[in-house]
Amino acid sequence: MKKVGILMGSDSDLPVVRKAIDTLAGFGVPYEVHVYSAHRTPAQAQEFCSTARDRGFGVLICAAGMAAHLAGAAAANTTLPVIGIPMASGGLGGLDALLATVQMPSGIPVATVAVNGAANAAILAVQMLALEDESLADKLKARREADTAKVLEKNSAVEKEFNL
Amino acid sequence: MKKVGILMGSDSDLPVVRKAIDTLAGFGVPYEVHVYSAHRTPAQAQEFCSTARDRGFGVLICAAGMAAHLAGAAAANTTLPVIGIPMASGGLGGLDALLATVQMPSGIPVATVAVNGAANAAILAVQMLALEDESLADKLKARREADTAKVLEKNSAVEKEFNL
Amino acid sequence: MKKVGILMGSDSDLPVVRKAIDTLAGFGVPYEVHVYSAHRTPAQAQEFCSTARDRGFGVLICAAGMAAHLAGAAAANTTLPVIGIPMASGGLGGLDALLATVQMPSGIPVATVAVNGAANAAILAVQMLALEDESLADKLKARREADTAKVLEKNSAVEKEFNL
Amino acid sequence: MKKVGILMGSDSDLPVVRKAIDTLAGFGVPYEVHVYSAHRTPAQAQEFCSTARDRGFGVLICAAGMAAHLAGAAAANTTLPVIGIPMASGGLGGLDALLATVQMPSGIPVATVAVNGAANAAILAVQMLALEDESLADKLKARREADTAKVLEKNSAVEKEFNL
Amino acid sequence: MKKVGILMGSDSDLPVVRKAIDTLAGFGVPYEVHVYSAHRTPAQAQEFCSTARDRGFGVLICAAGMAAHLAGAAAANTTLPVIGIPMASGGLGGLDALLATVQMPSGIPVATVAVNGAANAAILAVQMLALEDESLADKLKARREADTAKVLEKNSAVEKEFNL
Amino acid sequence: MKKVGILMGSDSDLPVVRKAIDTLAGFGVPYEVHVYSAHRTPAQAQEFCSTARDRGFGVLICAAGMAAHLAGAAAANTTLPVIGIPMASGGLGGLDALLATVQMPSGIPVATVAVNGAANAAILAVQMLALEDESLADKLKARREADTAKVLEKNSAVEKEFNL
Amino acid sequence: MKKVGILMGSDSDLPVVRKAIDTLAGFGVPYEVHVYSAHRTPAQAQEFCSTARDRGFGVLICAAGMAAHLAGAAAANTTLPVIGIPMASGGLGGLDALLATVQMPSGIPVATVAVNGAANAAILAVQMLALEDESLADKLKARREADTAKVLEKNSAVEKEFNL
Amino acid sequence: MKKVGILMGSDSDLPVVRKAIDTLAGFGVPYEVHVYSAHRTPAQAQEFCSTARDRGFGVLICAAGMAAHLAGAAAANTTLPVIGIPMASGGLGGLDALLATVQMPSGIPVATVAVNGAANAAILAVQMLALEDESLADKLKARREADTAKVLEKNSAVEKEFNL
Repeated sequence: MKKVGILMGSDSDLPVVRKAIDTLAGFGVPYEVHVYSAHRTPAQAQEFCSTARDRGFGVLICAAGMAAHLAGAAAANTTLPVIGIPMASGGLGGLDALLATVQMPSGIPVATVAVNGAANAAILAVQMLALEDESLADKLKARREADTAKVLEKNSAVEKEFNL
Repeated sequence: MKKVGILMGSDSDLPVVRKAIDTLAGFGVPYEVHVYSAHRTPAQAQEFCSTARDRGFGVLICAAGMAAHLAGAAAANTTLPVIGIPMASGGLGGLDALLATVQMPSGIPVATVAVNGAANAAILAVQMLALEDESLADKLKARREADTAKVLEKNSAVEKEFNL
Repeated sequence: MKKVGILMGSDSDLPVVRKAIDTLAGFGVPYEVHVYSAHRTPAQAQEFCSTARDRGFGVLICAAGMAAHLAGAAAANTTLPVIGIPMASGGLGGLDALLATVQMPSGIPVATVAVNGAANAAILAVQMLALEDESLADKLKARREADTAKVLEKNSAVEKEFNL
Repeated sequence: MKKVGILMGSDSDLPVVRKAIDTLAGFGVPYEVHVYSAHRTPAQAQEFCSTARDRGFGVLICAAGMAAHLAGAAAANTTLPVIGIPMASGGLGGLDALLATVQMPSGIPVATVAVNGAANAAILAVQMLALEDESLADKLKARREADTAKVLEKNSAVEKEFNL
Repeated sequence: MKKVGILMGSDSDLPVVRKAIDTLAGFGVPYEVHVYSAHRTPAQAQEFCSTARDRGFGVLICAAGMAAHLAGAAAANTTLPVIGIPMASGGLGGLDALLATVQMPSGIPVATVAVNGAANAAILAVQMLALEDESLADKLKARREADTAKVLEKNSAVEKEFNL
Repeated sequence: MKKVGILMGSDSDLPVVRKAIDTLAGFGVPYEVHVYSAHRTPAQAQEFCSTARDRGFGVLICAAGMAAHLAGAAAANTTLPVIGIPMASGGLGGLDALLATVQMPSGIPVATVAVNGAANAAILAVQMLALEDESLADKLKARREADTAKVLEKNSAVEKEFNL
Repeated sequence: MKKVGILMGSDSDLPVVRKAIDTLAGFGVPYEVHVYSAHRTPAQAQEFCSTARDRGFGVLICAAGMAAHLAGAAAANTTLPVIGIPMASGGLGGLDALLATVQMPSGIPVATVAVNGAANAAILAVQMLALEDESLADKLKARREADTAKVLEKNSAVEKEFNL
Repeated sequence: MKKVGILMGSDSDLPVVRKAIDTLAGFGVPYEVHVYSAHRTPAQAQEFCSTARDRGFGVLICAAGMAAHLAGAAAANTTLPVIGIPMASGGLGGLDALLATVQMPSGIPVATVAVNGAANAAILAVQMLALEDESLADKLKARREADTAKVLEKNSAVEKEFNL
């Protein structure tokens, strides 16, 4: 199976990014995690992304805050699908990172998820990999059903408390 | 090859969405186009999305404006990757559609592209389909090189005009 | 009397939504509370809303955060009036939920109240039910007068402290 | 049948508000239209709203732009449900009117619709009046089905053009 | 000397508004403080403002949050200058109150100060009253010089710490 | 009578500022108009403002766009009340000028009116001057009544068209 | 004298960027103009920036819109000062480009000017080069004086029209 | 070597500004620190800036919050490059200070860094001074390499934890 590359711009992003790692691990999808900054280690980020396809990666997930360029820089150096996680930091609540990640120019898309949406970034990566992998698609379906079941269970608790 | 399903919430979105259609056609990727509104035709949208995987679709692209729910509603009814195009309309410049598309809750990602970013939605879909399709991956690389060449050509013109 | 259906997208919304429940209870208006997610339990939400009128509901109140689709999805499946409560969460202060709730397309309104405005959602529901219920209208008038009295009481305390 | 009172803060709002008027007329719902400004004619607006229930009104619709106080001022003077239409004007795209309309304090709700959402304001009013009026509820259902049919018709046209 | 009327929409505004009270007291300007809500006590607010000029008030200061209508409602009922203090509350950081206070329609100005800018509201009121009161103008000048002195004192401390 | 000083940061502001000039002229209030930029002519702006009180000015009105510093710079150099008109320009719709004008630090208020709110700036200035001028106060009352009459006239026209 | 490198992400930026070119030419500062996209020609942009210091450049000016990464990418590849011009495009009025340009992480500054502020970008570059160049500093002073004179001339015209 | 002047509008800015001071000290660049407010000490700020070039300053760094005028006021009084640090304060997260700092009119640039970006302001100042100072340029290169090394070190730790 193709690997997912997870890049974060700073190790301070790890508490949020860990949800992406755990989610991929839960699906049994192989991954690699790296701290590469678009600005402080542009060469390493560029090198990683431009060779990613040949080294067996299928999807890249990039988490960054503020003027969040990491996902865009990755996308500029590969034609693999790149998923961007805008990280909230400072007083703007992640709006800066969201716009810096999603508003990409024509030709170089970044698949942007919600601010701090690390779990969804991983699920989106699994959805891509599942396009040609029936068993992974089945796992996605199972997780969706589990999510549904969890909501319905909470619904039952709430119904019991409030509806006579 | 798997098909791309293109949904728009209103046929007034067509002038923008056409760029997605043309881009997919340029890559030789099969697609279907539909006008389904999350709010006015919820049953048809739900039916389309929940059966899309079985009918040979690999990726869904959903374009909608304002309280743009179409991509989220699609994602709620399939585990295929769903790409959302927030459409600009009215005085808020598409900020409403962007937030309504990208800020999805955990478990149900929408791969969001820029406001009105229809061409990028198509390229992102092709990138997903190319994960297991070498020739498609080659076309992506070729297009990227053509984009690069176009910029360099414009650079030459500008250099000629301004740099002595 | 017609019932009010209260839906929340997640049980984490309960601390805020409880103000709607308590307010309805204070008016003696019958209600049902459910946790249904537009994205994780779309079928249950759809089923609930599309049959709500026939099961004796008069108004639906829907609370959701982020890309808050619950109220819109409800409104798409019923012609009952639907009240949306945008829930604040994350760094954007509820602006995402507000825009995703209020900016509905023509034909499918959502009666949107303030961010986290659960008590007002309940009062608005009571106002609707009171259109044909004199005694409920009287209770609304009484509560308004009580609200006025409370402000005037606080005014008296402030006047006593500051005005000689 | 109870009447709908339509107030606008300025007759410059009429081109947008006319969609509310036409929609109500289409449903055969009686209405009255007035130009009352919360700031320039506060006494008249107060007088109209505080006596509206006794004069046979069931719902008030208030359209205003900028620091849009009209709906809030109406709601402060009646316990009838009040629907607010934030009008776009100037460079802020209606964000000012939206926040000034929707962010009401506890006790005094305004049922806010989208920026310039006049047709939806009317439909919401009809939904409220239909709570106790079967034939009006049937008309709402019929309009919804007509809306659905219109989308499906456009879908057919698009399918014909793009799907072979 | 003319009095300053200080109105706040809720006694929860008092911790901020107290800075206005203290500032006026420091200038020896007579004032009255009241809790009047534009929405919960519209009649009292209207009565207070429409008779304020005749009862010896020269300026009104109004503090309110969210859909902050208090200053606008005051201005609609008097031709005295009205100063608005937008109060921060909830996740929008006071942007809602700012826009609801400042974006007044032509004919009914509100002199708006910064979010939570209670001290400045008082100083602005004093500036107005000082137009025809030399001794008050002198106090303003003295306070300005004291403010300047305070900054220069802090500057000296910083210079001592950092500049050798 | 004290004069009103009207400063604009650029003569491109004149089409909007002219409404302030015309309004003052309508009230028979003496005024002076100047183009002084806080950034391009800081010395002249400083000189004008710091001597304004002694030269018979009672109020200053300052119009500026973008990083609108003119009103704040004026307020820093006088203890006369300073009214700020944030001018809309560019893509941000005047939000930049509004925040740069209104968010003044403690001690130096700027009485801010709506974006492009030049007429209201003049009326606010008249309200200040009318504090000690009965005949000016009467003119304000007359204008307010005329504004009210204009709205009621429009109301009559609308009532005639729509209400049978 | 060191050269200024002017990069734009697309030749559609040229109408705005031309003001930077003309301004530099007016100061007699040598420059080079290039169209290099951070995303479509990352290698060329990287190559240009990382060798710029050695090739005699002193300052880089980078203009880009939307998720404007060009200035940040330049700054990541040189320790020369980099000036960023956020370009307005689409419905967000340049807010996206502004945040993507200015919110740089610690260690890699971008000297950001106003949205579309191309002339100021050039003046800022000249200010930097003038640090060690007296004659350039003199030209800056002369231009400032000319700017001042222009405002004063406009002031005279306005004074003549309005002040008797 | 030319000195860097560091101005802050209030000594409450010191905890953030200290990062600029420490960074300059780390580079061995001479500096002076002052607390000068554009509004409370306009004369001192003006005096400092207009004489700065002659007193051996090369760059000015100005930190201010809210309607942050300090950098603009500095730039209006010198042709030295001025760097602005928008300070976050209150509920708007620094957006007010950012817009008030960066949106300068043509002719008077402010080199704006990120909200609270004090370290970057210092680095930017060093970059300017290094234009004619090889040894300073070498220090910049060394710091950049150290930053890179720090990221790579963190990368190694993360790789060790997550990549088998």
